[in-house]
Amino acid sequence: MELLFNYVNQHSEEYIHRLREAVALDSVSSDPCKRSRCVDMAHYICNWIERLGGKSIIKHVGKQKFADGQVLDYPPIIFGDFCVDQQRPVVLAYCHYDVQPADIQDGWRFNPFELVEEQGKLYGRGATDDKGPLLDWLWAIEAHRQLGIPLPVNLLLCFEGMEESGSFGLDKVIEEESKGILYHVKYVCITDNYWLTEHRPCLTYGLRGIVYFQVHVRGPQMDLHSGLFGGLVHEPMNDLTHLLGTLTDNQGNILIPKVMDSVAPVTKEEESIYERILFDPEQLRKEAGQVSQLRESDKVKLLMNRWRFPSLSIHGIQGDFSGQGEKTVIPCAVTGKFSIRLVPHQQPQEIAHHVENFLKQQFAQFHSGNELQVEWRGASPWLADYHNSNFTAARLAFKKVYQVEPDLTREGGSIPITNTFQEYLGGEICLIPLGSPDDGAHSQNEKMNKLNYIEGIKVIIAYMNELAKQMS
Amino acid sequence: MELLFNYVNQHSEEYIHRLREAVALDSVSSDPCKRSRCVDMAHYICNWIERLGGKSIIKHVGKQKFADGQVLDYPPIIFGDFCVDQQRPVVLAYCHYDVQPADIQDGWRFNPFELVEEQGKLYGRGATDDKGPLLDWLWAIEAHRQLGIPLPVNLLLCFEGMEESGSFGLDKVIEEESKGILYHVKYVCITDNYWLTEHRPCLTYGLRGIVYFQVHVRGPQMDLHSGLFGGLVHEPMNDLTHLLGTLTDNQGNILIPKVMDSVAPVTKEEESIYERILFDPEQLRKEAGQVSQLRESDKVKLLMNRWRFPSLSIHGIQGDFSGQGEKTVIPCAVTGKFSIRLVPHQQPQEIAHHVENFLKQQFAQFHSGNELQVEWRGASPWLADYHNSNFTAARLAFKKVYQVEPDLTREGGSIPITNTFQEYLGGEICLIPLGSPDDGAHSQNEKMNKLNYIEGIKVIIAYMNELAKQMS
Repeated sequence: MELLFNYVNQHSEEYIHRLREAVALDSVSSDPCKRSRCVDMAHYICNWIERLGGKSIIKHVGKQKFADGQVLDYPPIIFGDFCVDQQRPVVLAYCHYDVQPADIQDGWRFNPFELVEEQGKLYGRGATDDKGPLLDWLWAIEAHRQLGIPLPVNLLLCFEGMEESGSFGLDKVIEEESKGILYHVKYVCITDNYWLTEHRPCLTYGLRGIVYFQVHVRGPQMDLHSGLFGGLVHEPMNDLTHLLGTLTDNQGNILIPKVMDSVAPVTKEEESIYERILFDPEQLRKEAGQVSQLRESDKVKLLMNRWRFPSLSIHGIQGDFSGQGEKTVIPCAVTGKFSIRLVPHQQPQEIAHHVENFLKQQFAQFHSGNELQVEWRGASPWLADYHNSNFTAARLAFKKVYQVEPDLTREGGSIPITNTFQEYLGGEICLIPLGSPDDGAHSQNEKMNKLNYIEGIKVIIAYMNELAKQMS
Repeated sequence: MELLFNYVNQHSEEYIHRLREAVALDSVSSDPCKRSRCVDMAHYICNWIERLGGKSIIKHVGKQKFADGQVLDYPPIIFGDFCVDQQRPVVLAYCHYDVQPADIQDGWRFNPFELVEEQGKLYGRGATDDKGPLLDWLWAIEAHRQLGIPLPVNLLLCFEGMEESGSFGLDKVIEEESKGILYHVKYVCITDNYWLTEHRPCLTYGLRGIVYFQVHVRGPQMDLHSGLFGGLVHEPMNDLTHLLGTLTDNQGNILIPKVMDSVAPVTKEEESIYERILFDPEQLRKEAGQVSQLRESDKVKLLMNRWRFPSLSIHGIQGDFSGQGEKTVIPCAVTGKFSIRLVPHQQPQEIAHHVENFLKQQFAQFHSGNELQVEWRGASPWLADYHNSNFTAARLAFKKVYQVEPDLTREGGSIPITNTFQEYLGGEICLIPLGSPDDGAHSQNEKMNKLNYIEGIKVIIAYMNELAKQMS
């Protein structure tokens, strides 16, 4: 292992150079104009897998119809097969190669698709979410190959290109391949989340789910002049604003009936676990864009709000006047976008049902001339037993690289694929976060610390090694 | 006059060709990227005035600082001086050469800045608001010049380039020039509004005012991931949605305290005037983008809602996620844009005061960690006596061209300059609408009927003629 670690230490410049190439492939999965870049990114990875001696498999999952009428292939799902020894356990590593949208006009200090290294930080869209961690797997394999050391486990890579846009097609492929290439998978390792503090690694045993709603209110066939038609028509923006305003109170607490009923009650034991976690609310306040105050000041309440209670965020409105300056327009059709983060024992279908009913009941009271349509997609929350072999190997790997026991934590975000793996593959699933909490995933000036990126390779090397030991 | 009318009939192709040129100059005053096009449009008009034998005067009004930091000259104000005979009255004609934003992706059937003639309609941004009417004045002068007939009145043209963006600088110029070039103005004629029905011209003696609000809610220093921070921070979109939701009830009725108090009560006489007006609610429903129902079905109630009661429209939100697809973001700073249409005896300052107080009181109850800032600009409502010489001349002009008595109407929109003219120039102000109510000003697929455009030239010719007669 020392040989491997030394090799990693000597190649950091190459590692950064290749991450720069990956970031430059602006694979924004939600943007039809950038779909071809997602495909480019997929080919970039497949070529790499082949160069490493693996077998790359591209899975196409059909065509997507966008709102503007365009029909384009979904980004493919990629498998990388590094299975060599039937006697050893099969480990599946999951990452995604697509990224969130980014525009320099949103307040980026640099072009978001040109990696910039500054004071030990690697800035660029996707640097930490999830291209840096994805590349760490490839570098871990590469180090073994260059040193002529066989991989200690059978490794399967699974990299998708629609994670930021609902993971379309992945469920089906996992279900199909659970009888194919994935048949022997015993351990799943997902590297797509973040440490709780900058100073200590953690392992993640729980995730919130999500239901993402798009609420369409459609009225006139075209936009209207507010001087000519203000006071005469039921304005879609008025309907939508009132609908969005009924979802929460002015503090952000969810008011939709029945939505909170299925939330698992907090136990005494759970509370004591939260109290032991190393966590600084003041640090969180800074990470939250230096807000003047958080909604709670107490550590346990904050962590519970993030991990084990639902939250509702309004993301935006499409179709309204969103430019700068003034426009005296009555928008003819608007779409409100909001999501609810789900926790055990909330299920997306059930929550969506309550929300849709509530929206329709509210809207009926408006006696509006407009039309309401509610769309949603969802992912369940997830909770694991952290005493199993997979978590033990990951824990020892972090200890080896960072000389510290990782915290056991949950996550506020959702990684829906976790549930899919659990459902179709069974086995043990572990989340190994490699990024730092201040990385700004989904935000302006996303970055990954150079240290996290490089040490992440070692963590993966050590994890595979420990997993093989656990089995022997 | 017959000679002039015949000349107009023979030159319609040229008139359309030049309107095509004017529309192609995409003079969007709210867009910093198009500021140079506003300047191009101003020069285009000045050259034309000079070719017609008039004197063109360009008034610069300073520099505008945009939110993105750009600093650009405001579009200039143009005067055209066609004063020849000190014995005759001086008439000031007002139009604007700037236009609303337009993008083919908003649902235009054609490129909005390429005029398309189809079935007697001239489609293009600005065709009816206000480039067609502006050109009508130039064509009326041109016809006199080509036929060697002197203008029957002293004509001053005043064309501005910031009407769609708050008419910055015009007040000051009018005030200054009220002792200069505008000193002898006795009659003002504004051609920047629309008939009430497609089938009968009208004259407009009243306008609603406006207060346009931009409500900024600023929180974190950057956008946040809703999985990581949902439930932990006071979300600016939640604050803004709740603020916007308190302005009206779910029907759109204004709830802001004191705002409705100063609205002039409806008199019996006023009601009877409204009852006599030719107006078809079903036609209005079609013009309003085929909405399934209007807020009122009764003619008088509808007209009063448009003309003599305030209305509140929410135009949009800036800074939120406004693209298509999904983005799980907590926007860090958002700006809500709404406006209230004002009626006698509401004044912008007073209404803005009530609204700002209300917003601040509501916001204080949220105990939010975010910051609130309210910006506004306003224009007063206007009401005239329609028995004066100016209205009489305009009435006779319409009768001459269309063989019908025009209706006497008010307008739901605001043309703030009307108040400025009233305040600084005194005299008699008349609004002569030339466009049709289905023209789609400010909307997708804006058009002006070819007939309205061509007959508009004759209306202006006859108006100047009748005004001279009124004086003799």
